[in-house]
Amino acid sequence: MSPSIELINTGSELLLGRVLNTHQQWICRQLADRGYEVTRQICVADDGPSIQAAARESLGRADLVLTTGGLGPTSDDITRDLIAQLLGRPLALDAAVLANIKERFAKIKRPMPRSTEVQAMVPAGARVLANLNGTAPGLAVEINPNPFRENKRGSWLILLPGPPRELRPMFSESVLPLVLEEFPPAQAFVCRTLHTTGMGESAVEEKIAGSLQPLVASGLELGYCARIGEVDVRLIARDEKAAATVSQAEAIIRQLLGVLVFSDGDDTLESTVVQLLTARKKTVALAESCTGGLIAHRITNVPGASAVLVCGLVTYSNDAKKNLLGVRGETLAGHGAVSAAVARQMAEGARERHATDFGLAVTGIAGPSGGSAQKPVGTVFIALADGRETTVEERFNPFDRETFKFVTSQQALDLMRRALAWEDK
Amino acid sequence: MSPSIELINTGSELLLGRVLNTHQQWICRQLADRGYEVTRQICVADDGPSIQAAARESLGRADLVLTTGGLGPTSDDITRDLIAQLLGRPLALDAAVLANIKERFAKIKRPMPRSTEVQAMVPAGARVLANLNGTAPGLAVEINPNPFRENKRGSWLILLPGPPRELRPMFSESVLPLVLEEFPPAQAFVCRTLHTTGMGESAVEEKIAGSLQPLVASGLELGYCARIGEVDVRLIARDEKAAATVSQAEAIIRQLLGVLVFSDGDDTLESTVVQLLTARKKTVALAESCTGGLIAHRITNVPGASAVLVCGLVTYSNDAKKNLLGVRGETLAGHGAVSAAVARQMAEGARERHATDFGLAVTGIAGPSGGSAQKPVGTVFIALADGRETTVEERFNPFDRETFKFVTSQQALDLMRRALAWEDK
Repeated sequence: MSPSIELINTGSELLLGRVLNTHQQWICRQLADRGYEVTRQICVADDGPSIQAAARESLGRADLVLTTGGLGPTSDDITRDLIAQLLGRPLALDAAVLANIKERFAKIKRPMPRSTEVQAMVPAGARVLANLNGTAPGLAVEINPNPFRENKRGSWLILLPGPPRELRPMFSESVLPLVLEEFPPAQAFVCRTLHTTGMGESAVEEKIAGSLQPLVASGLELGYCARIGEVDVRLIARDEKAAATVSQAEAIIRQLLGVLVFSDGDDTLESTVVQLLTARKKTVALAESCTGGLIAHRITNVPGASAVLVCGLVTYSNDAKKNLLGVRGETLAGHGAVSAAVARQMAEGARERHATDFGLAVTGIAGPSGGSAQKPVGTVFIALADGRETTVEERFNPFDRETFKFVTSQQALDLMRRALAWEDK
Repeated sequence: MSPSIELINTGSELLLGRVLNTHQQWICRQLADRGYEVTRQICVADDGPSIQAAARESLGRADLVLTTGGLGPTSDDITRDLIAQLLGRPLALDAAVLANIKERFAKIKRPMPRSTEVQAMVPAGARVLANLNGTAPGLAVEINPNPFRENKRGSWLILLPGPPRELRPMFSESVLPLVLEEFPPAQAFVCRTLHTTGMGESAVEEKIAGSLQPLVASGLELGYCARIGEVDVRLIARDEKAAATVSQAEAIIRQLLGVLVFSDGDDTLESTVVQLLTARKKTVALAESCTGGLIAHRITNVPGASAVLVCGLVTYSNDAKKNLLGVRGETLAGHGAVSAAVARQMAEGARERHATDFGLAVTGIAGPSGGSAQKPVGTVFIALADGRETTVEERFNPFDRETFKFVTSQQALDLMRRALAWEDK
């Protein structure tokens, strides 16, 4: 039986809409990938009564309750006190924790503010979770019997610090092992996510759902997640044949979708492209107009990109297209800057002038202004030159400016990925 | 008395950690900026019992309950049914809503799937909120008396569609006016956020907190929010002198922080820079090494950027630095690509070759590899050339690759902003 898990995020900044709740996504993802399911997530302000009330309610429902935030030294951070009060367990100074905190301050050669000492206060019977990147340790408390449940069934309450660089390693190194030990997976669990691009969610579903039906009937869980310019297909199985079921499903999908599948793990489209270029010892030069540097930015997010990206040119103006890429004045005059002919010359010019294997170029109308009846906002031409031939694709991405840029960058990266993937065939 | 507000987000993708809950941030921000406070946010899976249970609990506590998601046509989207059941109000086909849906399909020249008809089902007594960007209308129901509260005090339940491009306009055009009418602000409310860059959170606090103390003592609410490369200072006042209090606080902060404050509204650092360049009729050419196109990407996110950005050059390789910017071989050999001398030549070369008013350049070591004892990962040189002089700043940003890129782009944009801001003095 899978445990019921609730996640309580504390922080006024969340309820004021100042920050995104990245803890929710990260923690839920960590648990989901191991077969655990968060049944509810709650966000409350970090004031005393709100935190106490939320913890009490969650402990009344769930086998495992996780809280984030509120373990720091400042006056706002009162989670520790209130939880101890709620559980009726006195706080006591933990000498080992205090020594750790002092050592940390000594290492960075700063005096330890008196207020930090409160972080060494631990409720009776709690397990201390080491913090490798900060002073506030995490705390894990088993509450058994659990007075907040009618049947008194025991629950675990785990308190985690707020800063991501403290929470994430603590979760991986201390919380996951504890969860796996205290709530051992009752059955096999296999989860795989296939990332696709080039087709919308309903088209992907239409293409594969029928063929997967027999596997779904015998227990495969099939999920779709549409992102901008990308559709993920999630495969989950939970019985003794789980690995075989998921592999079978993956084989069916790969056969039906072919080159649309670009990754079956954590690889992004840009890291897939950098890996393919690296493996084939190929280089690329970019010529971006309407994406304004986003393709270069995405490629250079991948460590090792410098080995494959020789240069990127953001040529917004016609002059820059002429001077930096050799686009001809009469082509610009005759076809307009947003045209297949200009995209072609941009890609070929980038490739030739920088002696790379590929030249990849985009030109289009991002909007909000600049469109016309013949070339409305959203019109895009993408070109890839490889020395033998130049492929030009026309796309129509009538979205807001930032979505337009992202979708277009996705299409351009995918054009290059497909060209590299075909080389295998 | 301010209403208590709870927000229920539905969606398994959220609890599986597949997507970030952007609805939470957006809706909370919209309400907070008008003086309303979300007291609790809850996320549950979009299965029947979970949604019903969450709605029942929230209606037992709050004056206003908002839900997002679950109004679509597919089998997963059962919010409508379950809410009608919970409220004991029958669903009936709304002819006007159905006509709208049909018209929408006619306009995009697609057949209306039979399943879409369910979106025209409206619980008795509910107000229909028009959807300008999709088929599922929003629904607002006043529940008075409210059987879920001990005191039977009435509550509003508002159901919103999941897709952001449907939800956001509906919220602005229908929900906010309803909230302002049904829960009129009991007092003046003024909220202003000052965006700063160039100083950490605790340094900003240390600099201004003391001088603001008298205003805080008489009711000013002062909040800090640290983002990457940016600290926001939030000023809120809620009494008859609210406008004066916030203006006074702003004046004190501007005097103490000076040019560190770059915006007092929704302007980002990049939109501030584009506005300043536009107002002064100045142009810029970019030469990016370690930021890999991110500065160009951020600038081109701003509509109208094409008038000020002539071109951006992503010169990762030494050859590109030489060929595109005229950086001298002996400078590269003598000082290394990451050096003040190379940054200077990059900025001057970009400016001269493209005949712009400014040349802005960055060169640094993003990591994870490439560092040395003398120039560790995180070392950055930023240069701005304006024709009269070239300013070079050395920074140290020892962060993960993407944080490094963002912080460096922030420092470079800010160097240009400060140069433009000083022109006023």
